[in-house]
Amino acid sequence: MFRRFLTGSRIICRGLFLSKTNGPGDLNRAASMEGEAISTLCTPALVVDVDKVKRNAQRMIERCQNLGVQLRPHMKTHKTLECADIMTGGSRRCIVVSTLAEACFYADHGFDDILYAYSLSFDKVERCAALSERLDLFQVLLDHPDALDQLKKRPLKDGRLWHVWLKLDCGNGRAGVLHSDPEALRLAQAIAKTEGVELTGVYAHCGNSYNCRGVEQIQAVAQETTDLTLQFMEKLKAVGITCKSSIGSTPSCNHPVKDMGRLSEVHPGNYGFYDVQQSVIGSCTLDDVAVRVLTRVIGHCPHRNQLLIDCGWTGISLDGAGKLPTGYAVIEGHPNLKLLSMTQEHGRVEPMSGQLDYSKYPLGSLLTLIPYHSCASAAMHPVYYVHSEGRLVGKWTPTRGW
Amino acid sequence: MFRRFLTGSRIICRGLFLSKTNGPGDLNRAASMEGEAISTLCTPALVVDVDKVKRNAQRMIERCQNLGVQLRPHMKTHKTLECADIMTGGSRRCIVVSTLAEACFYADHGFDDILYAYSLSFDKVERCAALSERLDLFQVLLDHPDALDQLKKRPLKDGRLWHVWLKLDCGNGRAGVLHSDPEALRLAQAIAKTEGVELTGVYAHCGNSYNCRGVEQIQAVAQETTDLTLQFMEKLKAVGITCKSSIGSTPSCNHPVKDMGRLSEVHPGNYGFYDVQQSVIGSCTLDDVAVRVLTRVIGHCPHRNQLLIDCGWTGISLDGAGKLPTGYAVIEGHPNLKLLSMTQEHGRVEPMSGQLDYSKYPLGSLLTLIPYHSCASAAMHPVYYVHSEGRLVGKWTPTRGW
Repeated sequence: MFRRFLTGSRIICRGLFLSKTNGPGDLNRAASMEGEAISTLCTPALVVDVDKVKRNAQRMIERCQNLGVQLRPHMKTHKTLECADIMTGGSRRCIVVSTLAEACFYADHGFDDILYAYSLSFDKVERCAALSERLDLFQVLLDHPDALDQLKKRPLKDGRLWHVWLKLDCGNGRAGVLHSDPEALRLAQAIAKTEGVELTGVYAHCGNSYNCRGVEQIQAVAQETTDLTLQFMEKLKAVGITCKSSIGSTPSCNHPVKDMGRLSEVHPGNYGFYDVQQSVIGSCTLDDVAVRVLTRVIGHCPHRNQLLIDCGWTGISLDGAGKLPTGYAVIEGHPNLKLLSMTQEHGRVEPMSGQLDYSKYPLGSLLTLIPYHSCASAAMHPVYYVHSEGRLVGKWTPTRGW
Repeated sequence: MFRRFLTGSRIICRGLFLSKTNGPGDLNRAASMEGEAISTLCTPALVVDVDKVKRNAQRMIERCQNLGVQLRPHMKTHKTLECADIMTGGSRRCIVVSTLAEACFYADHGFDDILYAYSLSFDKVERCAALSERLDLFQVLLDHPDALDQLKKRPLKDGRLWHVWLKLDCGNGRAGVLHSDPEALRLAQAIAKTEGVELTGVYAHCGNSYNCRGVEQIQAVAQETTDLTLQFMEKLKAVGITCKSSIGSTPSCNHPVKDMGRLSEVHPGNYGFYDVQQSVIGSCTLDDVAVRVLTRVIGHCPHRNQLLIDCGWTGISLDGAGKLPTGYAVIEGHPNLKLLSMTQEHGRVEPMSGQLDYSKYPLGSLLTLIPYHSCASAAMHPVYYVHSEGRLVGKWTPTRGW
């Protein structure tokens, strides 16, 4: 079944018509693709360099071991079992997810100790309760007393406890109760004293590290988030409460400050794949980026000094608009090319200066895009093609939805 | 199985764990959801008003009948069987698709007379050949002699012909050979005289109608595209070639000019769903828009005068950035609210003026987003929830990938 996605005379498209259901999963069921060059894939295709993923994951594991902090990798970038196995070192324990669909997906495949690190949505309390009653350790997060009230209304069966993390905003400016707000301590105390509920930890996301450029700025954010979190832990201690603490973002965990060793956990996620954004921040090098979107030239437009490629926003997403001189991506090996604009299935490429030499880009030739934001690009693909040194070794199927 | 997505005590989350595969299709398999209010759905959720879709489709069918032109609806916006049934009036014939995955999906479910209206990608020739040999009428499109060479290299079996449309650029500025380029006529002649290949038609996409504001501008584009296409047909006739002609875009087909009746076909697509963009163009009214993204308030941020909602770019896409005073969407019934920014699973909402009255937006309360671009928003959802007058009547599962 896999070969129908490969070019060349051996493709058997009829294989596609045999399935009874129509989800993208059906496109990815089988079989003997091993050893084919990624250049044989039909495009657009998201390809993952498994050696880089393993290297990136191993480095993060070692970094956390050296720091003396528990790594709880975030699954939101890839949402696959295979990458989760690599990032957890095969333990299938101690992960964080961004959607309840991810939580269910991983729980369904033998993962446990799952933190659903998203401000408790009131429509999902019953599904969270079911997971809490099923897994050894399912954990939720909240940042408002109304959310705690929701948990009180749904006590867990068999004497189980709701494991609750308090989300603290330490300068990121998205979810979480402000670290400086007296309500933060009050809410922590309310969680801790509620019957059937346990205050498991305090959680801060330092997404503001994405505004940094260079290690010094990243470490300043890491230090500040760590300091504010640890100060809050001291306040908790002063009122007799002890629990875990966790901060995270890929930039801050790539360039940790020593004090992060005083936290219980860190929760980076993007580092399995990385992307151009991370390299611009100074979080990784471009060589660390494990994902690419393969695309082909499908049009020559000399009257506009442009090429057309078969990657539109369904292939790489619109994330990164206006962020790079090379447009929506970096076109590997072609530093003078810019991915100027996209529609649903078309990309317009033009040179940053001079005239295109079309003889270099014949119709059908392959271009390789390094995504600006791998979370966003991966979200557009029903399957990722996995390779080692350019030879296909498998495919990963992400979960989707909520 | 459906009820696990609904709020309330009847949810059985365990149902989610019983499936062996992991595609989003599994999330949408069953069953008795009929009659539930859409407000019971877990969010974010894309909901489709089936009555509006039927009304939109019927109006287009009638408009084309009155004009005397064959309607070939485009499937790219929704990519579902059910909406295709509505748009083809149940015939399951005469459709246009943007990806080969769509072509295979529809072919697999009994559709025929399918036009894959995308500049032939050289990696997909074999899969196109398989469809050509299987269906009564599978049609491809090209705009370059190199693509014709690819077809010559792969003659079809059993004396079948490659049915080829020539893509003409009549001012849209994306794919297609320029109408004014002498190469256009040469290529048409080359197609027509190639053994095993038939010049089926001339195809122009008037995507430049998306830059219009109001009926007058839309009709000017429709007139120009029609004129240029018909002039090209005359040139063909002068060299002894007759074939079909087709132009399309939802704006131009909503406000057709009389001369469009002289074309063989039109191929609009977005009109099943419509969106805010179409209403801004003047292509439809906001009341015609059949899709919404339901979202819930998950955070109050009075220190920033903002709300957080559970719809990030995975729920509605980043399309439309900077286009609307209300941000990435229109928030139905709340004209003073703006969807300011999004991350993967969070949206930041703020008032366009004044201070938010948080008592109007308690945590857990529902907001309804009208998408800027329904093609882009639909592409983010593994399932669409279909309702009639706010009561669920089914779910549609789109195909994805390429």
